Amino acid sequence: MTEEYKQRRERLREALVASKLDALIISGPPSVRYLTGFTGSNAMVLVPAGGEAVLLTDPRYEIQAAQDVSCRVSVVKTPLPKAVMSVARRKRLHRLGFESGRLTFADYEALRECLWLGASLEPAAGIVEKLRMVKSAVEVEAIRRSMQTAAEAYKQAMRRVRAGMLESDLAAELDHQMRRLGAEKPAFETIVLAGERTALPHARPGPYPLIANRLLLVDAGAVQSGYASDMTRMAFLGTPGRRVRRLYKAVLEAQQAALSAVGPGILAGAVDQAARQVLRNYGLEQAFVHATGHGVGLEIHEMPRLGKREKTRLAAGMVVTVEPGAYIEGFGGIRIEDTVVVTSNGCEVLTPASRELLPL
Amino acid sequence: MTEEYKQRRERLREALVASKLDALIISGPPSVRYLTGFTGSNAMVLVPAGGEAVLLTDPRYEIQAAQDVSCRVSVVKTPLPKAVMSVARRKRLHRLGFESGRLTFADYEALRECLWLGASLEPAAGIVEKLRMVKSAVEVEAIRRSMQTAAEAYKQAMRRVRAGMLESDLAAELDHQMRRLGAEKPAFETIVLAGERTALPHARPGPYPLIANRLLLVDAGAVQSGYASDMTRMAFLGTPGRRVRRLYKAVLEAQQAALSAVGPGILAGAVDQAARQVLRNYGLEQAFVHATGHGVGLEIHEMPRLGKREKTRLAAGMVVTVEPGAYIEGFGGIRIEDTVVVTSNGCEVLTPASRELLPL
Repeated sequence: MTEEYKQRRERLREALVASKLDALIISGPPSVRYLTGFTGSNAMVLVPAGGEAVLLTDPRYEIQAAQDVSCRVSVVKTPLPKAVMSVARRKRLHRLGFESGRLTFADYEALRECLWLGASLEPAAGIVEKLRMVKSAVEVEAIRRSMQTAAEAYKQAMRRVRAGMLESDLAAELDHQMRRLGAEKPAFETIVLAGERTALPHARPGPYPLIANRLLLVDAGAVQSGYASDMTRMAFLGTPGRRVRRLYKAVLEAQQAALSAVGPGILAGAVDQAARQVLRNYGLEQAFVHATGHGVGLEIHEMPRLGKREKTRLAAGMVVTVEPGAYIEGFGGIRIEDTVVVTSNGCEVLTPASRELLPL
Repeated sequence: MTEEYKQRRERLREALVASKLDALIISGPPSVRYLTGFTGSNAMVLVPAGGEAVLLTDPRYEIQAAQDVSCRVSVVKTPLPKAVMSVARRKRLHRLGFESGRLTFADYEALRECLWLGASLEPAAGIVEKLRMVKSAVEVEAIRRSMQTAAEAYKQAMRRVRAGMLESDLAAELDHQMRRLGAEKPAFETIVLAGERTALPHARPGPYPLIANRLLLVDAGAVQSGYASDMTRMAFLGTPGRRVRRLYKAVLEAQQAALSAVGPGILAGAVDQAARQVLRNYGLEQAFVHATGHGVGLEIHEMPRLGKREKTRLAAGMVVTVEPGAYIEGFGGIRIEDTVVVTSNGCEVLTPASRELLPL
């Protein structure tokens, strides 16, 4: 992996030259991990456009940093903003970019207090996030394994579903299976919703029973070797009626259309439009209240967003979710979600689970 | 609970008057929840020094906000910084405090772009955090229940310990028991460390086997009804030798001394000193590499910190951990931790678990 981290920092250096920055101060933990391998919670990395990167952390992480990190490490007792600025000054770096979308205002002020004559701090959001969009082969394999774990945990957990079981109990069972199968943790609070509650796209599982002859929505992902995965499947406790079947068919067709649209060079917004057009044909456009998908990697929500007017062009190696849905208050909602990797001529679905409405 | 949220906002208003602020913009999710009951991830609250609070969120949370929130709610499609500034302007508020330790630089810039003539943004860190230090009766009961869940899960999980079991499997078992007993999730990544690895105060459990005739450290806490809890216990797989027993005795005495020191009016630093003095007497001062404790509530790490030179005075209703430790590289470490609530004449321990070195 040391070689891979080196390559990532080299790509960052090229981006810094293009942005006319002398260096970037990285403070967001996922990007710190991406560039160095460090998994602790308190670190900053200084990457000069021409020169060696330095990771700064506190003494609690001395042993861990020595094990994890593939670049120079400096263990400091002073606050990190002060320490990083003193390294930058020693290296005679002047135009210093910082991650304005990750750094708190208080830490920005701490950096600013250390400025010297001729040096400046430049807000620079998204530089590392853009590099992280395209995954390496190692990263795609990590996401594939994470997805396999989540899908297998889903299958195991669904075997235990009974009417009367609580949403929160099924969520706990699924999380337990993920851990047993090698995940570090769930990628987000596992969503299990029963009956009409399926119409809430962002609700948390609660002490609500799974109901016979009603919909059941499960949205889950794992984190394994640091990488997230994401899937949503629907089940029905009994035999679904016409209205449910029609709604399901509409969302499944929308998802198929979006999957078919994914490929290198395609606008992220065009994938969203493909799903939205199908739902429009079914008169369900207003029921689709979120974007069609998002990038997945070291974080569960990354770039690119597959939203209405997104101008990012997809490229081979990007990993995104494809997850249209339709939500009808008082009735219920349907969402079908896969994690996919963009390939040279389309996409490969990484979620090994049938998309049929699971009868239970 | 509506009345309790009102009282919290009233206390905040008094703090704003004292700080000469017309209003505070709250963006940190735990403080948003503390003041309004809202549990979603995307919201800002504007609390004027004299007037009604407003919670702003996006359409995904429309239904949830209506159910959760005890003050005025405004669902907006514009970015929250812009929306909150337009409410402030309409209400003719001028000196606007913001949470500089929680807000990103990018969101600060988005607020600043909306400033009008005569208005100003004032960094105001820790105002709500200071209010949150002293818990109400309802909050203490929530933490007590969360702690009972974690302690019971610990007992259940420890029954399954066998030499050869992996650290990560015991951690998964403990987390599963917490969920089964009513927790929403672990309060942090549960720490299970075996043998020499107990000397790492911040390591993650990994694929390392529990070893016969060696130490085992378990540091775990639950989140239940939103409130965290925290405990650490030590076990020994066999009969401990003299060196382990002596180290254990030293840390246990240090913890007892710290617990005895806790009371209203006492400096947080004095509790730390009480633990540190005992370890100094044992020649272990250098082995105690962290603070004696921290506040616990809606977050796992809150104010006050029980560190060396902390000047905060403890008050009845504060909930803190008391967790001295001693770590010897190549040998192992001991930490003993309880969550306690400060009472009118000392403290009450909320962790229902024996402090004996558990023989297995």
